[in-house]
Amino acid sequence: MASAPLRLNEDRLFPAEPGTRAIARELYGLVRDLPIISPHGHTDPSWFSENQPFGNPTELLLAPDHYLYRMLYSQGISLEALGVPSRKGEPDTDPREAWRTIASHIHLFRGTPSAMWLNHVFVEVFGLDVRLSAQTADHYYDVIDAALKTDAFRPRALFDRFNVEVLATTEGPTDTLDHHHIIARSGWGGRVITAYRPDPVIDADHEAFEGALEAFGDITNCDVYSWKGYLEAHRLRRADFIAAGATSSDHGHPSALTADLSDAEAEALFQRVAKGKSSAEDNELFRAQMLTEMARMSLEDGLVLQIHPGSYRNHNRLLFDSHGRDKGADIPTRTDYVHALKPLLNRFGNDPALSIIAFTLDESAYARELAPLAGHYPALKLGPAWWFHDSAEGMRRFREQTTETAGFYNTVGFNDDTRAFLSIPARHDVARRVDSAFLARLVAEHRMEMDEAAELAVELAYSLARRAYKLDAPLVADPARQRA
Amino acid sequence: MASAPLRLNEDRLFPAEPGTRAIARELYGLVRDLPIISPHGHTDPSWFSENQPFGNPTELLLAPDHYLYRMLYSQGISLEALGVPSRKGEPDTDPREAWRTIASHIHLFRGTPSAMWLNHVFVEVFGLDVRLSAQTADHYYDVIDAALKTDAFRPRALFDRFNVEVLATTEGPTDTLDHHHIIARSGWGGRVITAYRPDPVIDADHEAFEGALEAFGDITNCDVYSWKGYLEAHRLRRADFIAAGATSSDHGHPSALTADLSDAEAEALFQRVAKGKSSAEDNELFRAQMLTEMARMSLEDGLVLQIHPGSYRNHNRLLFDSHGRDKGADIPTRTDYVHALKPLLNRFGNDPALSIIAFTLDESAYARELAPLAGHYPALKLGPAWWFHDSAEGMRRFREQTTETAGFYNTVGFNDDTRAFLSIPARHDVARRVDSAFLARLVAEHRMEMDEAAELAVELAYSLARRAYKLDAPLVADPARQRA
Amino acid sequence: MASAPLRLNEDRLFPAEPGTRAIARELYGLVRDLPIISPHGHTDPSWFSENQPFGNPTELLLAPDHYLYRMLYSQGISLEALGVPSRKGEPDTDPREAWRTIASHIHLFRGTPSAMWLNHVFVEVFGLDVRLSAQTADHYYDVIDAALKTDAFRPRALFDRFNVEVLATTEGPTDTLDHHHIIARSGWGGRVITAYRPDPVIDADHEAFEGALEAFGDITNCDVYSWKGYLEAHRLRRADFIAAGATSSDHGHPSALTADLSDAEAEALFQRVAKGKSSAEDNELFRAQMLTEMARMSLEDGLVLQIHPGSYRNHNRLLFDSHGRDKGADIPTRTDYVHALKPLLNRFGNDPALSIIAFTLDESAYARELAPLAGHYPALKLGPAWWFHDSAEGMRRFREQTTETAGFYNTVGFNDDTRAFLSIPARHDVARRVDSAFLARLVAEHRMEMDEAAELAVELAYSLARRAYKLDAPLVADPARQRA
Repeated sequence: MASAPLRLNEDRLFPAEPGTRAIARELYGLVRDLPIISPHGHTDPSWFSENQPFGNPTELLLAPDHYLYRMLYSQGISLEALGVPSRKGEPDTDPREAWRTIASHIHLFRGTPSAMWLNHVFVEVFGLDVRLSAQTADHYYDVIDAALKTDAFRPRALFDRFNVEVLATTEGPTDTLDHHHIIARSGWGGRVITAYRPDPVIDADHEAFEGALEAFGDITNCDVYSWKGYLEAHRLRRADFIAAGATSSDHGHPSALTADLSDAEAEALFQRVAKGKSSAEDNELFRAQMLTEMARMSLEDGLVLQIHPGSYRNHNRLLFDSHGRDKGADIPTRTDYVHALKPLLNRFGNDPALSIIAFTLDESAYARELAPLAGHYPALKLGPAWWFHDSAEGMRRFREQTTETAGFYNTVGFNDDTRAFLSIPARHDVARRVDSAFLARLVAEHRMEMDEAAELAVELAYSLARRAYKLDAPLVADPARQRA
Repeated sequence: MASAPLRLNEDRLFPAEPGTRAIARELYGLVRDLPIISPHGHTDPSWFSENQPFGNPTELLLAPDHYLYRMLYSQGISLEALGVPSRKGEPDTDPREAWRTIASHIHLFRGTPSAMWLNHVFVEVFGLDVRLSAQTADHYYDVIDAALKTDAFRPRALFDRFNVEVLATTEGPTDTLDHHHIIARSGWGGRVITAYRPDPVIDADHEAFEGALEAFGDITNCDVYSWKGYLEAHRLRRADFIAAGATSSDHGHPSALTADLSDAEAEALFQRVAKGKSSAEDNELFRAQMLTEMARMSLEDGLVLQIHPGSYRNHNRLLFDSHGRDKGADIPTRTDYVHALKPLLNRFGNDPALSIIAFTLDESAYARELAPLAGHYPALKLGPAWWFHDSAEGMRRFREQTTETAGFYNTVGFNDDTRAFLSIPARHDVARRVDSAFLARLVAEHRMEMDEAAELAVELAYSLARRAYKLDAPLVADPARQRA
Repeated sequence: MASAPLRLNEDRLFPAEPGTRAIARELYGLVRDLPIISPHGHTDPSWFSENQPFGNPTELLLAPDHYLYRMLYSQGISLEALGVPSRKGEPDTDPREAWRTIASHIHLFRGTPSAMWLNHVFVEVFGLDVRLSAQTADHYYDVIDAALKTDAFRPRALFDRFNVEVLATTEGPTDTLDHHHIIARSGWGGRVITAYRPDPVIDADHEAFEGALEAFGDITNCDVYSWKGYLEAHRLRRADFIAAGATSSDHGHPSALTADLSDAEAEALFQRVAKGKSSAEDNELFRAQMLTEMARMSLEDGLVLQIHPGSYRNHNRLLFDSHGRDKGADIPTRTDYVHALKPLLNRFGNDPALSIIAFTLDESAYARELAPLAGHYPALKLGPAWWFHDSAEGMRRFREQTTETAGFYNTVGFNDDTRAFLSIPARHDVARRVDSAFLARLVAEHRMEMDEAAELAVELAYSLARRAYKLDAPLVADPARQRA
């Protein structure tokens, strides 16, 4: 076992039936080398502004990947043993020991997308050719560690090697965007843009809301404790983000609820929220109203509005107390879209100039709610299979359950939504293979002609994302609005 | 592309694996030429009573088909451009221009059932042999328009050519049923029956309820403002409908809620509803109680009770204001059956003489609620995959998720539920192919013998619908009840 | 038809594609003869303590199997005609007549797991070689009846022949466990253990709660009307059950709700419940709190905690009045886990020493809630596809929807959960085949290597269940706790 070879089969993820596989292979051949469009993700822009070498295999591949450590944690391995930081800071875990721990538990990932992504990285990025195991852990560590010390493995070199045409990061409403400015001025040709994620100043249930709101006033010089000033601050920051390349905003609310309050109602609600006198219902309604406000601003400045609802954040109270947010303890919940989106759609949903992209963690809404909504409202499109569903089976269910009602053209291609930079090519490769396989089945069952499938393969892998996220012609920031 | 050939592959919708495909082909061969039973649909009976030629391609194929114009609308094309009537009436759109619009956007339907249905109509009904595109739009328009002017394309001729054994339309409670009477007296052999859809006098949330109730009194000469008179009016109209061939009633409520109130409670509730003094909760409860009243009447007169719940009607407020109902803006919602149907099932569900057919737009209820309910209660059967789910993937999910618990014999075959008359053979053909493919998989995986699958193929394509909708021996109207 | 041959195809339930089928066959070859681990079920321990011959084919195969009689009942056949007991006792139905009734309706089971299980029993247990039908009904009855009169078909002989390594029954909190004691002392080598199912003294909505609570006090000599005494009684009985081999408790609540009340709150709630003064909300909250209490005790004594929520029991009121519980009228409902399990998981979910196994009847929770929860919390694992979903399609959906997020190692193998003893090998065989087919697809699509799949096949068929249910090293009862 120790020296079991590791190879990526050229036909992986294609259906076994030879006729269908041949079609899938042909379709995939059309898209495998297309540039990567990554319009939504969570990589760190400082990697590309500073272009420093990554630290070590554990710090790069294990510690930031909640898919990996949540699975190990579920089987009784402590986060400390994996080098995952707690509220007290970095544990003093030897990174090589942490690497040995995942290596000796790698069987836990059998059948998961993590296994496919890791193997892709091991082979394609680091040229490894034996499987990871307890026996090969040190060999892996040494090979990867040595590579990371070379210039070819610095962030910009990898970005270029990965053939990324555009990569969006996500920044909060009080971010200076300095890293993006440095990248823009650097002369390096990589297109790294930002996206506007104002949750910290919209979600009053967030533990840092009060401080974020104050900082929001500081960075914009607006009176963010008045409703008008608060909205103006958002407009200014959106202009700042557009100047840093942004083409979209992103909203990770617990639910998809939207509202369309009168000005007076909205102002009164805001006052309760801003003064810390709001109830849980107030906070939910305020988030709801702000989605509609963001849509209104999108019609002014052109940002695409992304709605990512349905995660119960920080479900594990003890872990939240000890380790803070984003530690693999966010759990999807049942999510309503039909009633929740109605106020916003009733207000702006018929305007083809608006572009709303809705995601879901509740697959039961695909065929029942989201495909019918996106197959009707001009302003609404469907984001790809997301988060836990960003997997071979998840992507297949997405296509099977949305295509017949919403078609392909009300979807927006793939996005990787990841902070694991090295896995980006792997994730796009999986998406391209799964979509090729889906299209191949339609062709093999004579539900579509080959030339149609060939066109669609390129749309799904590349063009739809470019168009849906307005990446063809970057938005122009309104100088009157912009601060920095 | 302009002259790309259009052909219907004989193996379309069959699995690609050659062994399974051969079985599917054999099973389909047993059912492809069986007559069409269409026990539930929304074609216009005047077509068959008057037998006038259809107007033009757009008026026939595009304007009445909400599957088509909702998709085009979702991509920013106005309903006016498609010739869809608004509240102000028919737009003065040139039908040929509207046809060109759909032709140049036909790629939007790739992977949807609409694409399969349209191509079936183009080839089988009109003999077209090139694909629809911007380049071929005028050719299509000319060919179809010319055909529609010939006697062979009048409604009765098509009905006969389509090998329709029985076709049910749906009429409201104040309909005179004149078209059905004319058909019956015409000497033409086509069996076009009606179905009783009393929603307008049951659903007090319907904008036309008040007027419909008054007309209901006029046509029945009953005091429909008393509870007893109101129920008697339903009994009379059901007898009228039975005399016009009806074997079923149909109820499109927002939810599946049923109730079993005492007489006094029901009467008091009715008084509030009839006097326009009811709350939203009253209206929901009244609809619920009326399902139970309809079941009680079914035990008297034999009509099959169809429950079609779970659509949020007229979700798009602006579009409803400008264009009215049924414009592609009805969106499915999560639907409970277990609690909702309990009052009705507790009252009448153990009586094998009653036949209730439940449909769903919420596929998550198939395996969890509907199959277990239908696999237990003698009075309950499952309607086929419906509306948005009336598609290859939708029908497959229906079989995969209901068969193991409810079996095949608690289902009722296929119905097309369409107002697009020309698509009826296409839709039944898709259903027959998908069911043949499903059965073929069971045979190929040795979960069923071939002779069993062959029997089932005929049941699913033909016999189950005949039996479930009591079409073998038409119901006899009670002359004492009947008015006309 | 009468003499149609009956054979079990060696490749049944394997995918038709020859390459994948060959892999499935190879994987299945590794597990087909492994011993059966049946850690959760409802067979009658008196069969094994008394080892008397089974009565007749109807009494053995039909009357106790609600899968069979619910389907027949749904098609209008009375329970009396099938020999199913009512509240008045056994009907005087001739068992041979009942057998003829199912034989002449056997087509109703086409495509259901019951058909596969029955045929497996007919061929493998009784050596029958023609299909069951109206024509062969008497032949079947005679063959089976004759076999049952022989020693080779007594319970213990069948247990040995079935290669059952361990079989768990389920007993209530007031059971004396005499049958298990007799088995233990008998010298027979069969391992038949019990499981602790305290619902009757936890669920105050149960019609027998009051009497059960009194008996609970009698058998434990505890003051079960005080909160402390009541908890102590549970501890004593758990020790008794452990002494009779138990390694798990089992909780069949309507919902998955858990609670974590203060001692004072819990005691006050208990007082209302014990005195019959509790509301429906109280009863729900008490069940919720008791799951947390059971988890606390599990951390003391090691019992695995099984949660089986989501069934609406006795949905058919008339049938409940006439025939009592467990007559095929339990219907699954929508079930929340994310909010419901949070109190318990927040209290004990991070402790790897605790083992909670959660089941569901609501498949929409697999990918959305259960896999993410089990893929994070150390204490939580997923039970296999359950009850209505214990079928080829149901098991496939379970794997497809849970594996990518929870992996295989957060699942616990298969359990048959049946009272139909003879079907146990059939059910495990179906599970082994379906899992082999699932793994074969992963191998064929190059998502897993063959050696990994081979290891997993054995885990899923045998090892995971042994480990998850702690069957390797039986728990040791605390003598200080134990009563009998």
